[in-house]
Amino acid sequence: MCRWLAYSGEALTPSTLVLETQHSLVAQSLNSPLGKETVNGDGFGLGWYPERDVPGSAPALFRSIEPAWYDENLREIAQSIESPLFFAHVRAAAGPPIQQTNCHPFRHENWMFMHNGALRQFDLMRRDMLLEVDPALFSSIRGTTDSEALFYLALTYGLKVDPIAAMARAIREVERIGAALSVPNPVQGTFAVSNGMTIWAFRYSTAHASRTLFHSEDMETLQATYPDLDRLRIFDAGARVIVSEPLSDLPGAFIEVPESTVSVLDRDGYRQEAFLRAA
Amino acid sequence: MCRWLAYSGEALTPSTLVLETQHSLVAQSLNSPLGKETVNGDGFGLGWYPERDVPGSAPALFRSIEPAWYDENLREIAQSIESPLFFAHVRAAAGPPIQQTNCHPFRHENWMFMHNGALRQFDLMRRDMLLEVDPALFSSIRGTTDSEALFYLALTYGLKVDPIAAMARAIREVERIGAALSVPNPVQGTFAVSNGMTIWAFRYSTAHASRTLFHSEDMETLQATYPDLDRLRIFDAGARVIVSEPLSDLPGAFIEVPESTVSVLDRDGYRQEAFLRAA
Amino acid sequence: MCRWLAYSGEALTPSTLVLETQHSLVAQSLNSPLGKETVNGDGFGLGWYPERDVPGSAPALFRSIEPAWYDENLREIAQSIESPLFFAHVRAAAGPPIQQTNCHPFRHENWMFMHNGALRQFDLMRRDMLLEVDPALFSSIRGTTDSEALFYLALTYGLKVDPIAAMARAIREVERIGAALSVPNPVQGTFAVSNGMTIWAFRYSTAHASRTLFHSEDMETLQATYPDLDRLRIFDAGARVIVSEPLSDLPGAFIEVPESTVSVLDRDGYRQEAFLRAA
Amino acid sequence: MCRWLAYSGEALTPSTLVLETQHSLVAQSLNSPLGKETVNGDGFGLGWYPERDVPGSAPALFRSIEPAWYDENLREIAQSIESPLFFAHVRAAAGPPIQQTNCHPFRHENWMFMHNGALRQFDLMRRDMLLEVDPALFSSIRGTTDSEALFYLALTYGLKVDPIAAMARAIREVERIGAALSVPNPVQGTFAVSNGMTIWAFRYSTAHASRTLFHSEDMETLQATYPDLDRLRIFDAGARVIVSEPLSDLPGAFIEVPESTVSVLDRDGYRQEAFLRAA
Repeated sequence: MCRWLAYSGEALTPSTLVLETQHSLVAQSLNSPLGKETVNGDGFGLGWYPERDVPGSAPALFRSIEPAWYDENLREIAQSIESPLFFAHVRAAAGPPIQQTNCHPFRHENWMFMHNGALRQFDLMRRDMLLEVDPALFSSIRGTTDSEALFYLALTYGLKVDPIAAMARAIREVERIGAALSVPNPVQGTFAVSNGMTIWAFRYSTAHASRTLFHSEDMETLQATYPDLDRLRIFDAGARVIVSEPLSDLPGAFIEVPESTVSVLDRDGYRQEAFLRAA
Repeated sequence: MCRWLAYSGEALTPSTLVLETQHSLVAQSLNSPLGKETVNGDGFGLGWYPERDVPGSAPALFRSIEPAWYDENLREIAQSIESPLFFAHVRAAAGPPIQQTNCHPFRHENWMFMHNGALRQFDLMRRDMLLEVDPALFSSIRGTTDSEALFYLALTYGLKVDPIAAMARAIREVERIGAALSVPNPVQGTFAVSNGMTIWAFRYSTAHASRTLFHSEDMETLQATYPDLDRLRIFDAGARVIVSEPLSDLPGAFIEVPESTVSVLDRDGYRQEAFLRAA
Repeated sequence: MCRWLAYSGEALTPSTLVLETQHSLVAQSLNSPLGKETVNGDGFGLGWYPERDVPGSAPALFRSIEPAWYDENLREIAQSIESPLFFAHVRAAAGPPIQQTNCHPFRHENWMFMHNGALRQFDLMRRDMLLEVDPALFSSIRGTTDSEALFYLALTYGLKVDPIAAMARAIREVERIGAALSVPNPVQGTFAVSNGMTIWAFRYSTAHASRTLFHSEDMETLQATYPDLDRLRIFDAGARVIVSEPLSDLPGAFIEVPESTVSVLDRDGYRQEAFLRAA
Repeated sequence: MCRWLAYSGEALTPSTLVLETQHSLVAQSLNSPLGKETVNGDGFGLGWYPERDVPGSAPALFRSIEPAWYDENLREIAQSIESPLFFAHVRAAAGPPIQQTNCHPFRHENWMFMHNGALRQFDLMRRDMLLEVDPALFSSIRGTTDSEALFYLALTYGLKVDPIAAMARAIREVERIGAALSVPNPVQGTFAVSNGMTIWAFRYSTAHASRTLFHSEDMETLQATYPDLDRLRIFDAGARVIVSEPLSDLPGAFIEVPESTVSVLDRDGYRQEAFLRAA
């Protein structure tokens, strides 16, 4: 179990959200009110696009197995760079070893992926999942997590062409593999994907009882509601985050994303639709 | 703030206490019921004498900045060695950097030292403390913690000759330095020292409100009380621990050490006496 | 490319060979005269059996990604333990990430494995090799090296029953996979395997131009040749090492193992035979 | 002994010099032709000013104890940022522990400092040097190197007001302390200092046999000499580096800085003058 956030808006210094908010991601690494695990100290990652809407431009990654709360380099980097679209993640390992190649986000060319939750009995399902990955992609898998394996399944199924359909197919494939191996409710999680232009965030679990997911309120609405709140002024009108739990207790600032939903966030704003709901 | 344990008895595999008890030290690193901080994830250390009662024989150290809960080498080492007298420590850093040289226990020749608590405003007092250290010892200080500085003050004042008197003088010196710099209640903590034959453990704070300290009940008594408890049988009659908090909820197993007390544990068993109590 | 040593004899403190000889393994990590790479600074590992000839008894592992030359814990551990049969390895990474799960030796139950050399274009061959691994063993693979994949192939082919036949079949399988993928001369290396009773060391490459391998001279012979050499006296009559390059320049101390040979070392001493030589 | 480079010019991606040149700093970390030690694998650091000539603006630091040649984050960061004035350093530790707080460059407010070389018998001189540091600065010293101690001596003596005079006085003080303790030739090295506007680089040793130091030729001259050399075109007319050894074998590209010299590099270009030469 982990905590993550995805930001889209004008270029922003990640430390604003990662270090400085009331329940910043680094604060959540030590104490997560809504998390399944209280402590998320098994490494972290920051992935950022230098500019947005540059087709094919790859994000940069800074990942480490040190707990986020004491990593001095994380503080330096998060205060030094600016990015219009970034992912940040703190990990609570569910089994796979704690090593840099198992830290989120994962990257393939210009695509990034991160996950909160777990594929149940992944040890059992892993071989079948890897066999299903496109052989041409196989050698790009560098770590040993369930999350990265799911990412490569989705890439195999056309993530770059139709992210929502590819994620749906990848999840269904894991559920099929799980069923064949008698794994109950194999998929659990919230997932974020981006190509540097759009963020897709999925809340889904086989048991329809997924980890929490929230998106922030429209910034102009929020600024109008709290005209005296200085800390909101640093955000532009289009700034928006999707997060595994709220970054502050400010009433109205964070809205829960429903179960079995995909959120889509880009220059045109935020929208959401049903994802893998039974007909 | 930190958590620690000190063991004396027949040669024992440290994992028994460090990994396998109900509230083992590694369990406490993630969740410490009595600790000032819940999480003690800023490194750990294990220091052990290969044999006991060998005058001048130095302990071995295994220290790392990784959280104790996920360090695979800690599991391997703690299961592989045996020692009749060992210290184990998990750290929650109070300011000085998280680096191996700041992990407890500290070692000087055949002496080991560890600490839970903090010297208040150590940044302010540090220079005066270091100036007071014997110049011949100065270059042996490898880290930057308050704990190691206090250890070297005590060594300066004759720790090897009279540990109780030397610790008392070192603490009084810090209180003197603190008073001169208007630092309120400068000393806080529990401290453990050993020479490979005897363990001295101190519970003391200037404000007389120290971190908790416990010693285990006499093992023969405990085994008689719980004749059916298999997990007590691995301990010999003289086995004893001093710990910052109980390793189990077993009624009667752990007895609190009073404020302003020094515990002494050796081949002759456990005893305690008043330490730095006002006349 | 890497450097390694395997020791068999009376219980010995590993530091004797790992730290203290003229060309100790740690010295070779900074400067290897015979190595393909001069520097082997990409992590290290020590694996040791607490006792020998205890069927089914698993070895302990201490592995780290820090360069061996500065790891303080390696010095502490290598001086603190004793073992009658141990492996030590320093790594120069050939591609797979530098992480603890990629450090040698690898362990499966009571078996240990290490490797110097490389499977050429492993990225290309990896998927086919993993597919060939027994599905029941698949989830025990924790890292991403060619070496560990070969170990699991050999386990699949009966390493525990007939190590020489299983290693031969595993190597032939890699050569078959390589041929199918047009990889020239896919196998290169020296390999060491042990079950805690016997050490098998293989020198083999498809091109018949393998990395160097040496075994030490019979210790009684060596002690008779150099009766005044104090540093030989710490070894018992049966002490023997197999190494990727000599640990000292002492004439006669190390004898090269021929190309395409397997060395066998156990309580009955050292012997060698042809391995995978063309008929 | 270490290797370092300091860059001044238009904003440049550090990877250009740190990773991509023929003898880039990372290449030198594995194999330094002119270095006292061949391998500089004991950590590295990158310090950069986001903009130049902004009085009081502090540099960012990215420092790690991993060897520079395999640190993936170093590659990501060095390719992601841009800076008009940066320092990069690879360390070969001469005694003080390998830990992040001992990695160069060191920072105090908007000042940066790095060093190649060593203060001889620093263990002996350390206490006297630290006593001489301004008590108000003392608690800002976070590591335990000779280099950082010298930096704080220079800060004590007015580095911010007159860097050349302060460095001269700090070096003379170390020579005085060394003489009192019978340390022969205590100072050895090349030193770089910056405030974000100017770089001062010193080549000096008590024995007048200092580590090498070079500055690059004027870029317009170089581009005129090699009009067909594409890789020079990425540099602006004012781009200049000062380095412990040349980054390429290009004839004429690097000019040695004489013994007992200070180099000054800023918007007005490069100049040098005698430093601590006997009258």
